[in-house]
Amino acid sequence: MLKLYFAPGTCALASHIALQEAGAAYTTERLDFKSNQQNSPEYLAINPKGRVPSLVTDRGILTETPAMLAFIAQSFPQAKLAPSDDAFEFAKVQAFNSYLCSTVHVAHAHKMRGFRWATEEASFADMKRVIPKSVGASFALIERNMLKGPWVMGEQYTICDPYLFTLAGWLQGDSVDLAELPRVADHMKRMAERPAVQQVLAEEKG
Amino acid sequence: MLKLYFAPGTCALASHIALQEAGAAYTTERLDFKSNQQNSPEYLAINPKGRVPSLVTDRGILTETPAMLAFIAQSFPQAKLAPSDDAFEFAKVQAFNSYLCSTVHVAHAHKMRGFRWATEEASFADMKRVIPKSVGASFALIERNMLKGPWVMGEQYTICDPYLFTLAGWLQGDSVDLAELPRVADHMKRMAERPAVQQVLAEEKG
Repeated sequence: MLKLYFAPGTCALASHIALQEAGAAYTTERLDFKSNQQNSPEYLAINPKGRVPSLVTDRGILTETPAMLAFIAQSFPQAKLAPSDDAFEFAKVQAFNSYLCSTVHVAHAHKMRGFRWATEEASFADMKRVIPKSVGASFALIERNMLKGPWVMGEQYTICDPYLFTLAGWLQGDSVDLAELPRVADHMKRMAERPAVQQVLAEEKG
Repeated sequence: MLKLYFAPGTCALASHIALQEAGAAYTTERLDFKSNQQNSPEYLAINPKGRVPSLVTDRGILTETPAMLAFIAQSFPQAKLAPSDDAFEFAKVQAFNSYLCSTVHVAHAHKMRGFRWATEEASFADMKRVIPKSVGASFALIERNMLKGPWVMGEQYTICDPYLFTLAGWLQGDSVDLAELPRVADHMKRMAERPAVQQVLAEEKG
């Protein structure tokens, strides 16, 4: 049995949706970020990075969204969430998810987590002002060059889709105009229609 | 035939070493960052992100170091650079490389590329002051929790090793004291003894 540690509003949503889409048997545990539970001794013993998501498996604990997503896809091959039997196509999936984690998510993180990279209030304010431009530029690249449609990789729904959906969910709060990203907006709408997505969103809200 | 676009001193070194370790047939093309060649129209047609590395394959172009490293490992299975037949062990490899790209490399990037996330000179100076602490903390976690030894994943040399070696090569310039990271320092030394690493370093210098 798999167990996912998550917090609402975080990138853990991507793995949560993937588990649901895969038909996996799993449980979830919600962390309370307001009380800084992610840095409690109990949770640091699970994930010393003090971040979500973490996935507890029979063989040990996994962290890092791109790694967890690929693990879910490969553990439930019947769900066809990644082209694991084709090294090149699999690398395309990985490259997309790697861009989301190292560029898109990082750009967004400068809004609320500037303390990771700076110390002055003026720097945090500067970083916040840049968010619409930096996040907007990364999504413009996705819109123009990466999102094939109807799904990220084309006809086949993959682990790229819940990850993109998760990060796209932050665009409004980041003051990025979705009207300039019609293909991303269409993808969000298509994702929101999936039963697995609806079920997970309801659970995370609850 | 594979073709790697690289620039000296960048994370492209990881993929360069992996290609050499894999025994791959490949060529390289050096980009001149001083003349901003990574943002030339010619190169943007190859990689619209204007970054290195890029790997041109018979089937298309790959970007993003973790994706390229896994592709190299899976394309040359006889080199045993990743446990591709075990989803959990493969996920451990991926999680390590994902941490390097999204946390460690990103921390380092705030020294010279603060313009990605801020606009003010004072913010850039603030970011630069934080580098030893932010990069140091991410490497302390690697030292304490991730690097099994003698190689990152234990007895088996994998695609994690050239990637760690590449980023560890920036520690001195980032004013992180290697004396506090004895296991990382030992790993660097062990890597530097490998013929493939020596050959690639010589080529990138040349």
